Amino acid sequence: MKKVVVIGGGTGNFVVLRGLKKYPIDLSAVVSMADDGGSTGVLRDELGVLPPGDVRQCMVALSDSSRSMRDLMNYRFENGGLEGHNFGNILLSALEKVTGSFDRALEEAHKILSIKGKVIPVTTNKVRLKMVLNNNKLLDGESEIDGSQELDQGFKSMYLEPFPKAHHKAIDQIMTADLIVFSPADIYTSLIPNLLVDGICKALRDSEAKKVLVVNLMNKNGQTTNFKVSDYLIQIKRFIGEDIFNYILINNVKPSKELLDIYAQEGTMVENDLHEDSRTITANLISDEIIEQNKSDIIKRNLIRHDSEKIAEELMKIVDHI
Amino acid sequence: MKKVVVIGGGTGNFVVLRGLKKYPIDLSAVVSMADDGGSTGVLRDELGVLPPGDVRQCMVALSDSSRSMRDLMNYRFENGGLEGHNFGNILLSALEKVTGSFDRALEEAHKILSIKGKVIPVTTNKVRLKMVLNNNKLLDGESEIDGSQELDQGFKSMYLEPFPKAHHKAIDQIMTADLIVFSPADIYTSLIPNLLVDGICKALRDSEAKKVLVVNLMNKNGQTTNFKVSDYLIQIKRFIGEDIFNYILINNVKPSKELLDIYAQEGTMVENDLHEDSRTITANLISDEIIEQNKSDIIKRNLIRHDSEKIAEELMKIVDHI
Repeated sequence: MKKVVVIGGGTGNFVVLRGLKKYPIDLSAVVSMADDGGSTGVLRDELGVLPPGDVRQCMVALSDSSRSMRDLMNYRFENGGLEGHNFGNILLSALEKVTGSFDRALEEAHKILSIKGKVIPVTTNKVRLKMVLNNNKLLDGESEIDGSQELDQGFKSMYLEPFPKAHHKAIDQIMTADLIVFSPADIYTSLIPNLLVDGICKALRDSEAKKVLVVNLMNKNGQTTNFKVSDYLIQIKRFIGEDIFNYILINNVKPSKELLDIYAQEGTMVENDLHEDSRTITANLISDEIIEQNKSDIIKRNLIRHDSEKIAEELMKIVDHI
Repeated sequence: MKKVVVIGGGTGNFVVLRGLKKYPIDLSAVVSMADDGGSTGVLRDELGVLPPGDVRQCMVALSDSSRSMRDLMNYRFENGGLEGHNFGNILLSALEKVTGSFDRALEEAHKILSIKGKVIPVTTNKVRLKMVLNNNKLLDGESEIDGSQELDQGFKSMYLEPFPKAHHKAIDQIMTADLIVFSPADIYTSLIPNLLVDGICKALRDSEAKKVLVVNLMNKNGQTTNFKVSDYLIQIKRFIGEDIFNYILINNVKPSKELLDIYAQEGTMVENDLHEDSRTITANLISDEIIEQNKSDIIKRNLIRHDSEKIAEELMKIVDHI
């Protein structure tokens, strides 16, 4: 069975994993642990636990349990002391407290949720994401970076504090994979935080796996304003030290003008400027699903978004080829 | 397979169910739904859910899942917005929100926890327990009654507001049981609230099941001050309208003087004044287990307490006999 490792943050990983889950492959997710906003941030601060949010999303994507169990994991309390917390975040935090370690908490959660595959935190060190902008301003924490409108001015450095060691299972998975998939994700707050963990970039360079980047659909104004595909490659290369990708998966369908107009304030579409690059694979990757506003917050966030099944089909063509 | 129904509140039911779980019987628990204190009270107030606490304790008693799953259900958060909540209470409340009904929440929880048997809320109406004392003072809510030191002055009435309908499954279980066990419990706040639900007393009178009362070990000063066994029977008869018990199970071993001295401020031992009554069964029912102060709060509450296995052995003698 071919071994596929998906790297990124919660939402991007969720979309890729949900699609790949249906195929007969050995699937694992390596997940960023730098989140410090929302429910996750509160649980980190108040309980001293590791950030559960991104891990929860990947677990839901890979869960073979009932629909109601998955709804339960994403359920967000609306009142009182529990307000804003996802049930799944509370579950992971309680498991960490009861078992005494995030690793054992994940093992238990894998059983409770009948996980198909493995969800692996990139590190189990407690870290905080930092970014020093070109104007020397320090952005402190993932949620501060996520909310900034100044990132497109450029930055001098990004780092995790304290400098964390990679989870040995993350290294193992990367070194033994047949295919490594970089999920579409907020590049600075979901993707790069994985690359800032000691050992990950070396493993990515050394691994004999094929590597594929699933390129974002949309830019984010103030962060990746007017980025083209090559700009994403440059940012990632800045951390890994070389361009590791064998394949670059790019959407080639334009959403309706109505949707693009709605989206205009948030950002433009990512333009493909790599038509000459033989590594590119272009396909229709956009979801046609109409959004119900009451659906889980994972889906609600993006009106223009990737289709799990379409991405998985393209990725499986690569898997079948290697 | 003989059908045994256990009636009471959480802690008493927990002890009886944990013991009976090991035997090949068809076991169910009918659980009071009047709790409004602690974590349960906060969840009721803030989320508008039904009280999960007593149901949770019974579920843990009947769960066939791993030790860590049971520890998880009883885990109590110690900080922040989640402080004071048991994880199991949060689970049941989230399930009620996600599924839209307490009944469906319980079905899901039965699956998640691999419950052996059934846990049935005596009602799924939202109720509040009230008590009018002889001095006309109204005690409003289970936790106010639980904290009162004036109950031994006598009371004029107890009722649930609004007057609730019994869960049809509770009636079914009572009517088809071979044995109905009244758990040892705080009589006013855990046992009698079951009897205040429309239909329960009639079912208890009409059911052809044998009925056994497991008498409390200790009185509670200010509530059941210096009660003897006959006093408990009188209080229960006041609600059911007749003395329904075929068996009365009474502990006959005195704890050490040290333990009784520690307990003196809380209450005295319940004296057996029914030596002439052929329905009484006396046996050593006291737990010898040394209490670890850090164990789950269920056990910590009572230093002198029933032994699950000893109670179950005596109850199974009755089951084998009928």
